[in-house]
Amino acid sequence: MNFEEIKSNVRAFVQEELFSLEPWILNCSWEEKLPKLNELRKKVKAQGLWLPQIPKEYGGLGLTNSEHGEISEILGASPYGHYTFNCQAPDAGNMEILIEFGTKEQKEKYLYPLLAGDIRSCFAMTEPDYAGSNPVDMGTMAHKKEGNYVLNGHKWFTTGFDGAAFAIVMLVTNPDAPNAHKKASQVIVPTDGAGVELVRNIPVMGHSGSGWESHSEIRFRDVIVPQSNLLGAEGGGFTIAQNRLGPGRIHHCMRWMGICERSFDLMCKRAVSRELAHGKTLADKQTVQNWIAESRAEINAARLLIQDAAKKIDAQGAYKTRKEISIIKFYCANVLQRVVDRAIQVHGALGLTDDTILAFYYRHERAARIYDGADEVHKSSLARQILKDYRT
Amino acid sequence: MNFEEIKSNVRAFVQEELFSLEPWILNCSWEEKLPKLNELRKKVKAQGLWLPQIPKEYGGLGLTNSEHGEISEILGASPYGHYTFNCQAPDAGNMEILIEFGTKEQKEKYLYPLLAGDIRSCFAMTEPDYAGSNPVDMGTMAHKKEGNYVLNGHKWFTTGFDGAAFAIVMLVTNPDAPNAHKKASQVIVPTDGAGVELVRNIPVMGHSGSGWESHSEIRFRDVIVPQSNLLGAEGGGFTIAQNRLGPGRIHHCMRWMGICERSFDLMCKRAVSRELAHGKTLADKQTVQNWIAESRAEINAARLLIQDAAKKIDAQGAYKTRKEISIIKFYCANVLQRVVDRAIQVHGALGLTDDTILAFYYRHERAARIYDGADEVHKSSLARQILKDYRT
Amino acid sequence: MNFEEIKSNVRAFVQEELFSLEPWILNCSWEEKLPKLNELRKKVKAQGLWLPQIPKEYGGLGLTNSEHGEISEILGASPYGHYTFNCQAPDAGNMEILIEFGTKEQKEKYLYPLLAGDIRSCFAMTEPDYAGSNPVDMGTMAHKKEGNYVLNGHKWFTTGFDGAAFAIVMLVTNPDAPNAHKKASQVIVPTDGAGVELVRNIPVMGHSGSGWESHSEIRFRDVIVPQSNLLGAEGGGFTIAQNRLGPGRIHHCMRWMGICERSFDLMCKRAVSRELAHGKTLADKQTVQNWIAESRAEINAARLLIQDAAKKIDAQGAYKTRKEISIIKFYCANVLQRVVDRAIQVHGALGLTDDTILAFYYRHERAARIYDGADEVHKSSLARQILKDYRT
Amino acid sequence: MNFEEIKSNVRAFVQEELFSLEPWILNCSWEEKLPKLNELRKKVKAQGLWLPQIPKEYGGLGLTNSEHGEISEILGASPYGHYTFNCQAPDAGNMEILIEFGTKEQKEKYLYPLLAGDIRSCFAMTEPDYAGSNPVDMGTMAHKKEGNYVLNGHKWFTTGFDGAAFAIVMLVTNPDAPNAHKKASQVIVPTDGAGVELVRNIPVMGHSGSGWESHSEIRFRDVIVPQSNLLGAEGGGFTIAQNRLGPGRIHHCMRWMGICERSFDLMCKRAVSRELAHGKTLADKQTVQNWIAESRAEINAARLLIQDAAKKIDAQGAYKTRKEISIIKFYCANVLQRVVDRAIQVHGALGLTDDTILAFYYRHERAARIYDGADEVHKSSLARQILKDYRT
Repeated sequence: MNFEEIKSNVRAFVQEELFSLEPWILNCSWEEKLPKLNELRKKVKAQGLWLPQIPKEYGGLGLTNSEHGEISEILGASPYGHYTFNCQAPDAGNMEILIEFGTKEQKEKYLYPLLAGDIRSCFAMTEPDYAGSNPVDMGTMAHKKEGNYVLNGHKWFTTGFDGAAFAIVMLVTNPDAPNAHKKASQVIVPTDGAGVELVRNIPVMGHSGSGWESHSEIRFRDVIVPQSNLLGAEGGGFTIAQNRLGPGRIHHCMRWMGICERSFDLMCKRAVSRELAHGKTLADKQTVQNWIAESRAEINAARLLIQDAAKKIDAQGAYKTRKEISIIKFYCANVLQRVVDRAIQVHGALGLTDDTILAFYYRHERAARIYDGADEVHKSSLARQILKDYRT
Repeated sequence: MNFEEIKSNVRAFVQEELFSLEPWILNCSWEEKLPKLNELRKKVKAQGLWLPQIPKEYGGLGLTNSEHGEISEILGASPYGHYTFNCQAPDAGNMEILIEFGTKEQKEKYLYPLLAGDIRSCFAMTEPDYAGSNPVDMGTMAHKKEGNYVLNGHKWFTTGFDGAAFAIVMLVTNPDAPNAHKKASQVIVPTDGAGVELVRNIPVMGHSGSGWESHSEIRFRDVIVPQSNLLGAEGGGFTIAQNRLGPGRIHHCMRWMGICERSFDLMCKRAVSRELAHGKTLADKQTVQNWIAESRAEINAARLLIQDAAKKIDAQGAYKTRKEISIIKFYCANVLQRVVDRAIQVHGALGLTDDTILAFYYRHERAARIYDGADEVHKSSLARQILKDYRT
Repeated sequence: MNFEEIKSNVRAFVQEELFSLEPWILNCSWEEKLPKLNELRKKVKAQGLWLPQIPKEYGGLGLTNSEHGEISEILGASPYGHYTFNCQAPDAGNMEILIEFGTKEQKEKYLYPLLAGDIRSCFAMTEPDYAGSNPVDMGTMAHKKEGNYVLNGHKWFTTGFDGAAFAIVMLVTNPDAPNAHKKASQVIVPTDGAGVELVRNIPVMGHSGSGWESHSEIRFRDVIVPQSNLLGAEGGGFTIAQNRLGPGRIHHCMRWMGICERSFDLMCKRAVSRELAHGKTLADKQTVQNWIAESRAEINAARLLIQDAAKKIDAQGAYKTRKEISIIKFYCANVLQRVVDRAIQVHGALGLTDDTILAFYYRHERAARIYDGADEVHKSSLARQILKDYRT
Repeated sequence: MNFEEIKSNVRAFVQEELFSLEPWILNCSWEEKLPKLNELRKKVKAQGLWLPQIPKEYGGLGLTNSEHGEISEILGASPYGHYTFNCQAPDAGNMEILIEFGTKEQKEKYLYPLLAGDIRSCFAMTEPDYAGSNPVDMGTMAHKKEGNYVLNGHKWFTTGFDGAAFAIVMLVTNPDAPNAHKKASQVIVPTDGAGVELVRNIPVMGHSGSGWESHSEIRFRDVIVPQSNLLGAEGGGFTIAQNRLGPGRIHHCMRWMGICERSFDLMCKRAVSRELAHGKTLADKQTVQNWIAESRAEINAARLLIQDAAKKIDAQGAYKTRKEISIIKFYCANVLQRVVDRAIQVHGALGLTDDTILAFYYRHERAARIYDGADEVHKSSLARQILKDYRT
């Protein structure tokens, strides 16, 4: 299969297998939908499309960031696209970390089952008492004791903790490091360990959810894990997190493009089909035309920015692409929100119902302007990088 | 009690009795919360604050539109404020109609139990197959037969149908009227009548809800009601609807101001309490300051526009205030959306959870830009009224 | 003449005497238009409309801030309205200062000729090397020597310096005052004094202008003025400036409303008269309708905010109205810019020409978002005032 | 010289030869600056950079649309860049027309002197009495008489008419053509012909200008030109105009990118150099950071959209790139306006003066949202093209 064939097959899968499950799949519980998703995963494997983002030596398709970006847009048209192909957050990011930093033992125990889709995982970074925009400040601590780490702390918004086999936890191992970016480490923590408490699945936008579709508040109380569960170097947690974010943002942003295109498509379909008085349709309304034109321009612009960043990452690595990555994060999140909002408005009352996917997007994607760095954090960070060159 | 005392008592009631029920009351079912709401309604009656918007001869407080506007803002700070004081949509509008157009018999049977809070009602206008922006086009029909009307039709977004004792239904009685605005009538339809079918409570933003907190899709299949259930004149349905909208929009928009003020307050509290690095808080961030300043300006502007329109309605009636009513509808709905959005952004991930009321507002108030005339319908309508004066 | 008659007469004057001078008066030099303006000033005096903002004991009409606000809107429809009625910036502000703080001698020498329209004046505050948003930092200094002040410094954007008889200069007299707000004073400086140098009339938006229609860069080099030229207390310059700004902003903002209404009127006239294909006009275009509706809403909102602030100033003074004054400054300046921009767009290429007044507004009123405190300065200042109450 | 060398040489030329002429060259008359410009043109020829957009066989550099786009951005940083390299509007478009449609005789007489820079030309299309958005409706007529055309009509906004040797005039030759797009032709009209009247150079944004820097209102009264002055086929005027617009828009939009980058650069320089209190600069203000970040994102997005369209034109021609061309026209014009506006705001009062180029941009580039199709025309046109595919 060449890349064009892969794309074509993925697109067909999404449209035939996933769209047809709506709206049922959008409105039932994780437990109800899981058997169906497992069945679909088998089909994906059978079609040779499993793990598009993973190197071939680990059983994936070995796509570049640019290529997987295109796949991510196609998968993004369904909220279950990435899951079905096993390239969903947060597992995909954890696979990346384990591939790059995992020891042989860690890979055996955690990576291979994850790649196989036999287990799920989660990534515990955000804490309720610390601003997410400041990744060097956190309260979760690990003290060394007899070859182990003893963990204490409080995390929340740990996506998919409920049902995950393990968490990669960001925590402070070196509180006295002179460089604040060298205080934290990443450690693998099995979720069934003593002292690991699921406080609650946080109710978000009216639903607590469960399984992969939940965001947990968790507490670590004297949780013991062996020091061999450390990922990479001690004090290297921030560096790993940074590396992880670059390519991840490409795929995330491209997923949003999938949402944008689907919303745009629904908007256009509604415009030509909704009849007004005198044989006119919504498509004849200049305001609707404006929204369609502006959405088209903005989606195109957003995708070009992402593709440009993806090419730079593939060529120069994530570090040299920091500016472009910040740009796509805030620019595309806002395009996403505007396009979904316009599509809803064109649908009128129907757009508020769960009869289309738009209200689902509206609720779930408001988060896009907040997670992985809020708009205002990325804007300030980008501006400071730009202005640095003017100060010399 | 003078008006200042009324306001002060209402405010105390909302803050003490209603805020304390959150977040429980925001996240439980209608059936679960109803006993508590009934208990609160008794307290409101006992305090002499029941039915603030209703003339004294009908047992209310007899407030003007301007005054009830102020009450509506105070009540609007809680999603259950209006319900508790029995001035909630859609019942409040139905009370108005029955007071103005109801016969003695209709009042006995429908109005007084409604005023007493013993029953609920609903208003069935919107249809899935007709654009809401065109109130003269509808498919629900009533044919006269032996002193009765025989109804057939399809409605949706009938708020509170589930559990209501009766519906006021907008339908076509005079399909051949030369003036399109004279085709429709309003008819009282008991919800337990043969042929009245609740198709479903429409899932909206992830919830179907029930009772007062639901929007139903309903079908009328050869439903028979006596012609004495007609409200006002045959063919007068559109006129009644228009009259009903003016004052209703004042109260609606002022309810939004209550939401805005509460969101603003939460935003400010969060800004001063959320700590960032180096002893700073979010309040020190200029972007947050911009949002607070812009929100303050926009809320003040919106309220002044509403108060101005309320004064005009009190002085000149709703018809001469059409321009102002269109202005507040689209202007205030957009202020509402922006303020809630900014408040969420200042809360970060917390703003997406149901730990504050903001995510509830975000989901429920997106409708504000759609119902009772979408933004773009009011803008066109207003502009045409303005431009008419330039054409003469 | 009661106030309604005053308004009516002022309106008639503006429309009959001033509009008819366009576009000539917009595009000729100050020297060319001055004879005509002097002639009009005589008519204004003859009609008893001179100095609407000035107390009766000083020969004015004695209007309140609310009332003069209404006059200011009417006058604002022409760029020469305020000048013709002798209530133009910067002279009107200087009159206020002299009335409140001027000694008998200062009034004789400077105030009465100003009230009579025999001389012009200017107000020198802004300096090229200091941010305007920081009124306590400035480089112009006055040293005391033998009963005189010896001035040195550099000012710019001193409006109307060219041809003015005197300047009120904001400068530092008490550099060592512990309270930074007590360093500066205001001093009257005759413009013909030795060492007062007009460096240039600054070219602004393509024109240097002259006379009242210019903004000068000036230098003071060992300029000597008697200490009796001090206004109010030494170190009280900032306080005087603050007092001056409150009512001045009301009138300024209402002047903008005059510009908005005139632009709105031109936009509507153009919309109904510009023919497109098939018998349609621009008025039939929904985008144009949106602009008209949004402009109407925003202008109404802006005016209500200003009127609200004016009432508060009349009732409680400028200090207690600081928040409202900050709000109208940034809110109205942005409404102004949007309305003018939309009116131009509706005019197409014609809107860029000097055949209408719109291009004049476009060039001259961009400054509104900058002078007297830029948008962002007022927003931060307002937010900090609001948040202060949340910190206690 | 390979393309990288060309770019590097052009950039050096603009920065060394053109920037150094400011602000003088921005504020003097066409007559005053012409000798200097002619001198610079000689240097450009001497450096082998003349006519970058023109095929090699006509003496140009033979760049593709993509390549000339890059050059156009570099030249766009100075308002005299394009003129100096002889690729300025409207002459560049006229060269294109003459190369593609000109007869041997027309080329001898009009094209070669134009390529040599010995004469200037203009393009007369817009008429005061017809909406520019409707290119098939126009009042200028040519009647055939004895081998000649006899022209009558009224044009305006004919850029550079003043001093041009000839005009390409869009006019109706076939008023009865059944297809409205086949009514108009393009005809070469020498400007010194009897009956060609320069009514006035239209005052635009405060200046009438002259020479290349003016927009004329002109009248044709029984002007006689030989039929051999027809360009292309009779009735083919619209087709020629369409062809001309595609590549022209690429170069235009890239010129705007040059303006954006220069404004962005000035904004950043100001931000790091303008001191506020306490050792801070404007660069420390989050609002300024937001503007810088948003501008960077928007400029990058705009450029990528243009480059994408340029590649499509180079590969598939302008017709198949219609959607992309509409997108860049309205998208980039708005980015341009926002970036210039933010740069001015960061400069404060200085930004309003002619001490920087920003106020020049502000006045001259407001036209970008109007000429060559106003924003709203392109948006409607784009939406209709998109929706056409949804209707089948």
